[in-house]
Amino acid sequence: MIRGMSTLAEILTHNAEFVAKKEYEPFRTDRFPDKKIVVLTCMDTRLVELLPRAMNLRQGDAKIIKNAGAIVSHPFGSIMRSILVAVYELGAQEIIVVGHRDCGMTGLNSQRILDNAQHRGVSEEVLATLRHSGIDLQHWLKGFESPEIGVKQSVEIIRNHPLLPDGICVHGLIIDPTTGKLEVLSDGYPQA
Amino acid sequence: MIRGMSTLAEILTHNAEFVAKKEYEPFRTDRFPDKKIVVLTCMDTRLVELLPRAMNLRQGDAKIIKNAGAIVSHPFGSIMRSILVAVYELGAQEIIVVGHRDCGMTGLNSQRILDNAQHRGVSEEVLATLRHSGIDLQHWLKGFESPEIGVKQSVEIIRNHPLLPDGICVHGLIIDPTTGKLEVLSDGYPQA
Repeated sequence: MIRGMSTLAEILTHNAEFVAKKEYEPFRTDRFPDKKIVVLTCMDTRLVELLPRAMNLRQGDAKIIKNAGAIVSHPFGSIMRSILVAVYELGAQEIIVVGHRDCGMTGLNSQRILDNAQHRGVSEEVLATLRHSGIDLQHWLKGFESPEIGVKQSVEIIRNHPLLPDGICVHGLIIDPTTGKLEVLSDGYPQA
Repeated sequence: MIRGMSTLAEILTHNAEFVAKKEYEPFRTDRFPDKKIVVLTCMDTRLVELLPRAMNLRQGDAKIIKNAGAIVSHPFGSIMRSILVAVYELGAQEIIVVGHRDCGMTGLNSQRILDNAQHRGVSEEVLATLRHSGIDLQHWLKGFESPEIGVKQSVEIIRNHPLLPDGICVHGLIIDPTTGKLEVLSDGYPQA
């Protein structure tokens, strides 16, 4: 049996029991975030349970968006769309970007990924086709110099977005992936 | 005090206590996903605690990516980059796309968002500038016809991605946001 074949099966077996035992009952809520916030953070495995606990985010509290690095790459990409949907359709009033120390997007090595892709069967012809189609893989697979710089850039894109309405606060934070300790890089509250 | 001003303050107060009491201790792990999976799902508030419980995903188990609708909008956007980073840098062997019933991206009304934006202070001039810059807001703010179609499209983009190596399974699931019940739309295991 392929190793993976047991993973989905295990998930489904667990799930059938979860539903049968009505373990969902404590989690009833609606789609509107009770704390009126949307959090953009990283997909890191170390944040799966730690971040919600460390920020006291329970079921129903927040919209949570995650990608590699907590990065808004493009003002008209899916992350920014998700943020605007949270603001306009779901009543979010604050946006919190939470990068983390020891993030894999720090100095991501695009060449290593592309070499690895070739090693795993992606042909030179495919890579050349992409290159000759105007797709800049080196740029696309580049991370950031530091999580602080990553958060700062994402916060700037959100704050300056042409479709962000007035009165929305955008905060930039860093979390420690071991202790969950938060540091505020910039808060978006109006100056006193 | 602006309502929001208490939200970040509350988070930070909770966080200081969380760290001081060493409540992070049960969550020690590393950046590699123990179950060798990456999950792409929706930012919905109803999935914050329910989805990890319903899928038995604990700290350290998985990379979790989230946006509005669990959508891969573009083969060279940040969601697909995140998936490839999980595969090449972090050893993910299976990719599970989990859409959900009653998703706000079903029939998302782009005109309503744009009207709302104008109502909240985004000028007609800004909207015209975007339009005349080749940015198709109507298309960008469009969701999908159904979560099933959304999952199917995202699974197709991932499975056919030029940089996805052989041997990676891509599964498409739907979760019920009330009970957490999973349905398999398509599993990516090799045909027997």
